[in-house]
Amino acid sequence: MTPTPAEDTAALEKVTQTTQARHTIPTPVLVRGTGLLGTSIGLGLRAAGLEVLLSDPSPSALAVAQDIGAGTILDSESAAATGRQPGTVVVAAPPDVAGEEIIRALEMYPSAVVLDIASVKGAIAEQVHRAVIDQRITASQASRYVGTHPMAGRERSGPVAARGALFTAAPWVICAEDSTRPDSVAAAEDLARLLGATVFTMTAAEHDDSVALISHLPQIAASLLASRLQDTSTLALSLAGNGLRDTTRIAASDPQLWVQILTANAPQIAPILHGMREDLDRLITTLENPTADGSRLDVAQLISEGNRGQARIPGKHGAPPQAFSVVTVLVDDTPGQIVAVLTDVAEAGINVEDLRLDHSAGYEVGMLEVSVVPGRKEKLVEELTNRGWKVV
Amino acid sequence: MTPTPAEDTAALEKVTQTTQARHTIPTPVLVRGTGLLGTSIGLGLRAAGLEVLLSDPSPSALAVAQDIGAGTILDSESAAATGRQPGTVVVAAPPDVAGEEIIRALEMYPSAVVLDIASVKGAIAEQVHRAVIDQRITASQASRYVGTHPMAGRERSGPVAARGALFTAAPWVICAEDSTRPDSVAAAEDLARLLGATVFTMTAAEHDDSVALISHLPQIAASLLASRLQDTSTLALSLAGNGLRDTTRIAASDPQLWVQILTANAPQIAPILHGMREDLDRLITTLENPTADGSRLDVAQLISEGNRGQARIPGKHGAPPQAFSVVTVLVDDTPGQIVAVLTDVAEAGINVEDLRLDHSAGYEVGMLEVSVVPGRKEKLVEELTNRGWKVV
Repeated sequence: MTPTPAEDTAALEKVTQTTQARHTIPTPVLVRGTGLLGTSIGLGLRAAGLEVLLSDPSPSALAVAQDIGAGTILDSESAAATGRQPGTVVVAAPPDVAGEEIIRALEMYPSAVVLDIASVKGAIAEQVHRAVIDQRITASQASRYVGTHPMAGRERSGPVAARGALFTAAPWVICAEDSTRPDSVAAAEDLARLLGATVFTMTAAEHDDSVALISHLPQIAASLLASRLQDTSTLALSLAGNGLRDTTRIAASDPQLWVQILTANAPQIAPILHGMREDLDRLITTLENPTADGSRLDVAQLISEGNRGQARIPGKHGAPPQAFSVVTVLVDDTPGQIVAVLTDVAEAGINVEDLRLDHSAGYEVGMLEVSVVPGRKEKLVEELTNRGWKVV
Repeated sequence: MTPTPAEDTAALEKVTQTTQARHTIPTPVLVRGTGLLGTSIGLGLRAAGLEVLLSDPSPSALAVAQDIGAGTILDSESAAATGRQPGTVVVAAPPDVAGEEIIRALEMYPSAVVLDIASVKGAIAEQVHRAVIDQRITASQASRYVGTHPMAGRERSGPVAARGALFTAAPWVICAEDSTRPDSVAAAEDLARLLGATVFTMTAAEHDDSVALISHLPQIAASLLASRLQDTSTLALSLAGNGLRDTTRIAASDPQLWVQILTANAPQIAPILHGMREDLDRLITTLENPTADGSRLDVAQLISEGNRGQARIPGKHGAPPQAFSVVTVLVDDTPGQIVAVLTDVAEAGINVEDLRLDHSAGYEVGMLEVSVVPGRKEKLVEELTNRGWKVV
């Protein structure tokens, strides 16, 4: 049973409702920095009905952002003339310059909530503290600042790739301090929720420790691995499967951005890399003498430790790891095949929890991997088999 | 337009045709070892109409394999009595014991084609050569052996997970030597093709060098990375996204199998790990002094080298990397939503090249990423938008 247009509309409205909640965000919102994230924030806030102003050192990036509807270019002279000031400033500048941008915004707009969205939080908070100690700004001014980090959109860049729903269902970390004004915290949280994100509250130190492990370390591992492929023969690469593709996907990330992230969070990352190097050293020693006593145990231990770490990663919706059963269906690579399978799944009244089309080189067929809650697997296999699908 | 049942059947027949080609495989085929791969080979050969015999040191694994239809348990006494001998022996034993199993099969069945499917090829070929030098078997007997490696099914194990279509569209490497009998090579190639795999021909050394880079190194990187997560806080893990999930997925692999693979291919792997350690050492030194001259350049270079390596990995069907355009559609997490999107895609006459449902913790919505050939992207965005979908 294909859903009727009315059902589709209802579903879309349900999605949209999460972005229509009441909020405490002072407007207009000035987005300083119209890269991927800043422009996406502008688009999302505009879609929710807020007035958005834009600024960026690059006139062309700024023009693109305005053209695609992310907001109106801030005209400093007319703003001064009319006395109309931003109620909230979102500093969406690269990590390197975010600190100075925050300090300038706190000075320039004496009552605005100021938040940033950079991927490192301790180093930037430290810059703001130092500005207070150096008496460039007052403690009262600094109390309007909230550090935040929306965890989305790392692999593409620029305003053209922006989309208002970029943050939907993504974690958005809020790092308030004891001295931060409650109304600033509330505005930051509302902004994240208005854009469809899930708010996580933690200290800057907790944030930096967390992302060092779950974001920066995977980037480093993927880059170290992919780097080894630079001179690989085409023959070897023709054997590549999803294992290699998955482990190296994020190695395509932007070097300039990652230089800033990795150097700013270096104190948190370096100790983890030491642990990784110890494991790697042990493995190299073992593989250089693979028939020595205990060498097989050493290798088994490394793989087992990887098993244990991997099993701790939560699944979709924060569900327990590996909570879903996978049913694999053979599909021909023509329009309509995937639809036909999923139509049959929907007719059986079974919800698809996750979906993946698995391909390799050479053949025009694929494996459609349909994840369902474990209790539904048997029924799904039966229903699909009865309808003539090749469940493998 | 949902495909009619007739269209579905035609599509499935097209898939099945690839397994109905004529072949030169001497029968019956004896599969020695009824784990995931051996049992899957039995199922696939039976589905193609071949007679399959099974043997395994584990009576329970053997019984399961026979019960699910992978073949008939080999009864040695009745085989001796009737004089009925296998025409082909597939040694599907773990890498550790594959060499001895091959030598025994060459002795035991004086005219059979003998092939193995272990993930390392040089070490096993060496064992067969040594058996000739030691005069355990003759060079003529050894010429009936073909080393092969089907690159599929690494993450699950046991006969219960077996499926006849496991090898569909997967690479299957054939490592013949100059001394190998041509009819043995032809039988091995036909067997791989009959099971739907794509045949790649190379030397054992080329194979081992290739898999060290594109299979063993990703496994090691994923295990080293996942291993660091063993003691991570739940708070940190709650921020995990697809980047972490993708880079660590294969860290769930079987330690016992990987001990055998990594130690057997150690001479090929160790030099690559040395290169990786040099990069890691340089990064650690840099991050321990991130404000030093040249440190940012060092980090940028590592990420850029990763970019270059990643860009060389071929896509689906061996297509050039990143050949597809991705259109992202916001979907609600209820039955029928994905079908509804893909029905509209199919009605627009556009083929789906790849598909991914992208989720994060907390919200009951997802991003359906639909990959299409670049020339179709604009039309797809237009069609979906016109039909009321939120394309983001």
